[in-house]
Amino acid sequence: MAVINHSIGMDIGGTNTVMGIVSHEGKVVARDAVKTKDYPILEDYVEAVSQKIEAMLCDCSLTGGDVRGLGIGAPNADCYRGTIEHAPNLPWQGEGLPLGDMFSRRLGIVVKMTNDANAAAMGEMQYGVARGMRHFIMITLGTGVGSGIVVDGQLLLGKDGFAGELGHVIVKENGRECGCGRRGCLEAYCSATGVVRTARELLLATDTPSLLRDIRPERLSSKDVYDAAMKGDALANDIFRQTFELLGKTLADFVAFSNPEAIILFGGLAKAGELVRKMTYDAMEARLMPIFRGKTKVLLSEMKDADAALLGASALV
Amino acid sequence: MAVINHSIGMDIGGTNTVMGIVSHEGKVVARDAVKTKDYPILEDYVEAVSQKIEAMLCDCSLTGGDVRGLGIGAPNADCYRGTIEHAPNLPWQGEGLPLGDMFSRRLGIVVKMTNDANAAAMGEMQYGVARGMRHFIMITLGTGVGSGIVVDGQLLLGKDGFAGELGHVIVKENGRECGCGRRGCLEAYCSATGVVRTARELLLATDTPSLLRDIRPERLSSKDVYDAAMKGDALANDIFRQTFELLGKTLADFVAFSNPEAIILFGGLAKAGELVRKMTYDAMEARLMPIFRGKTKVLLSEMKDADAALLGASALV
Repeated sequence: MAVINHSIGMDIGGTNTVMGIVSHEGKVVARDAVKTKDYPILEDYVEAVSQKIEAMLCDCSLTGGDVRGLGIGAPNADCYRGTIEHAPNLPWQGEGLPLGDMFSRRLGIVVKMTNDANAAAMGEMQYGVARGMRHFIMITLGTGVGSGIVVDGQLLLGKDGFAGELGHVIVKENGRECGCGRRGCLEAYCSATGVVRTARELLLATDTPSLLRDIRPERLSSKDVYDAAMKGDALANDIFRQTFELLGKTLADFVAFSNPEAIILFGGLAKAGELVRKMTYDAMEARLMPIFRGKTKVLLSEMKDADAALLGASALV
Repeated sequence: MAVINHSIGMDIGGTNTVMGIVSHEGKVVARDAVKTKDYPILEDYVEAVSQKIEAMLCDCSLTGGDVRGLGIGAPNADCYRGTIEHAPNLPWQGEGLPLGDMFSRRLGIVVKMTNDANAAAMGEMQYGVARGMRHFIMITLGTGVGSGIVVDGQLLLGKDGFAGELGHVIVKENGRECGCGRRGCLEAYCSATGVVRTARELLLATDTPSLLRDIRPERLSSKDVYDAAMKGDALANDIFRQTFELLGKTLADFVAFSNPEAIILFGGLAKAGELVRKMTYDAMEARLMPIFRGKTKVLLSEMKDADAALLGASALV
């Protein structure tokens, strides 16, 4: 009998879904993607993704029998049931969407699911900057804000598997509307979309000259804000400062919860690199209670692009 | 060789220190206390408590050799080193106060320490309303606000043993001064002292007639507020409503962190019973993100007085 050396990892994001075939050494040997929002009907999505996975397997001269299974990282995944629940940033709404079963039936392989941020945390712990850490928090700064909390070397899942929804702690009383239906969540400010909302607000509320005024507000992206900040644009810098000061302050509360060795920033916004890391760290440190000061690192993910989520998801099976 | 059937539990609070001898069935067979604030010098405190412990052992016809050891629950305890670190509500300030070693040398027995709220959580898990629960959060509402977080049946300790400082998440930007040196902590509002501060503020800020106006402001206690609320006093009710709505809202963030089965309220303020439980639960439930609604209980501790802390502390050894 041949040794089964590969598994499939999949990262479902609000914008893109990335699939990869991962070797047992932790290398992504094949990779493909679909635009999540192109598939408003769940069945179409499962079919499109499955076809891409089959094509990748074929390119690698593998079949479904040659892989350990499919690990999926997805927002609001119920890891105990293999479903997605009320995920505000995905096109399919409602409770108990049985993605695990659907992929398992379609592909004929074992499927396990977890929160996308939990998957990223697992990837980081096995292959990234969190190697050897027993206590850390992964914060994913993408379309939304997610988190994966590791306590004593294990993912904190909680009673229903929904622990680590740190994007939805409330940071401003009666603040911005959030996709979850409430107001003032961290995600409404410190995600890529939150940065764009802050940019639009500040462009309207001030007369400050800015490179961002050359871009039509509805086309503005967090990447535009980053690019402008890198060119020394004062307004763009102000947007980043507001965003990461708020993130840092909020992280101080997370430290009071689980006393981690490090908080690791991951995802699109974290690509702004040292600028973001330092702003966040300084704001956190200034806000920590005395017993925690000087003890908690803020680090940037070492995983390339979506690798952390893919590798972490693949490690589920 | 005789079977060792007893251990000693000790609960160090800002106001009282309670010591008890606990049988292996979880019964407190002897109990005594000292006023913590009567001993500004740490050595005097250790001596006074040790003498009381020796007297209790003598009364029970036991010696130091007949007990498994001393378990201590104390605010800001470093469970890994047996020290107390910067505890704002205790008379002895500073870093690394070696209470564990001091008691161990004085009494000649094994000493283990943990956060007082962690000790309460252990007591509740072994003997109280959290029996059989794998995921819960204990909130202690006394002179300060503490917490013990249980994840997968284990205390969440964190990298340095300081996890679960939920009394010091910041709930009001630039809010009230807190004993920890910062502003706006949960503890500054939802502790017994927080209730008194709210009472004094409202008595000054309003003309509402109230039974509380018959008490000199500097002598007002949270018990007075409770007694007045029970008599239908509108101002006292308003104080309680403000306090426990804020607590409930904040609990919603804690649920997003660890997805517990229940949050258990313990300590002086929790004695206000169902009034407090329902206000807190309703405010929490209204604030939860949709995936958590209807899934998290708010319960009152079943442990008598300081029993949870004593039993939990004694279970450390």
